[in-house]
Amino acid sequence: MSSPHPHASTDVRADRGPGASSAHEGADPQVLAELQSIRGTIDNIDAALVHLLAERFKATQRVGVLKATHGLPAGDPDREAAQIERLRVLAASAQLDPEFAEKFLNFIISEVIRHHVAISEDHRRQSPGAP
Amino acid sequence: MSSPHPHASTDVRADRGPGASSAHEGADPQVLAELQSIRGTIDNIDAALVHLLAERFKATQRVGVLKATHGLPAGDPDREAAQIERLRVLAASAQLDPEFAEKFLNFIISEVIRHHVAISEDHRRQSPGAP
Repeated sequence: MSSPHPHASTDVRADRGPGASSAHEGADPQVLAELQSIRGTIDNIDAALVHLLAERFKATQRVGVLKATHGLPAGDPDREAAQIERLRVLAASAQLDPEFAEKFLNFIISEVIRHHVAISEDHRRQSPGAP
Repeated sequence: MSSPHPHASTDVRADRGPGASSAHEGADPQVLAELQSIRGTIDNIDAALVHLLAERFKATQRVGVLKATHGLPAGDPDREAAQIERLRVLAASAQLDPEFAEKFLNFIISEVIRHHVAISEDHRRQSPGAP
């Protein structure tokens, strides 16, 4: 580990770092070093995504409580259609496949609705007279 | 629109803004104003998510080209297991359901592998003698 470029050494496979695994036995160490570098970027992006998703679910949790308290429906097709259209446009401008952006939002929304239904059921159990 | 608090006015439903849709006919305007405010936050988070996903796919595109060029397999189960374990830990510390974080990463990875297979097939078509 005294090398200034440890990732470029042949030790990289023995280390089993994020850029090297049993899938890459015998591959060029320079290629593995580049793979490891890109994977470091992917891991940083993933950490940011997880933290943003955590904040997003805090926000939708507040929406869920608001809807349950006031007897509003868990899903909202008009809102979802507007969100999908907006994200498709943003995706296109960011060079992300708009189809994937739509699939992604549907994936998130289906989880959110599952949470909203659970919040609504909890609320009904706690306040049987509420709408 | 001359009101200093247009979202709190009863016009909010007629506007069909992001906080008001046909799902909320007859709801309390103050509740709708709060819903609209939280939805603004969700929309900002979604824009950030889309832009991060766009960068993530640029990075995995580079990985895909690298793998195709050097004949490495599109998927890498060891790497995926390490990513999932890491994201579950990050999710727990961010108060995001680790099960959801894992489902989310699997959703992204399945899209990435689909891209990698496509890149690999393109590469084979262009260089029939390559590994």
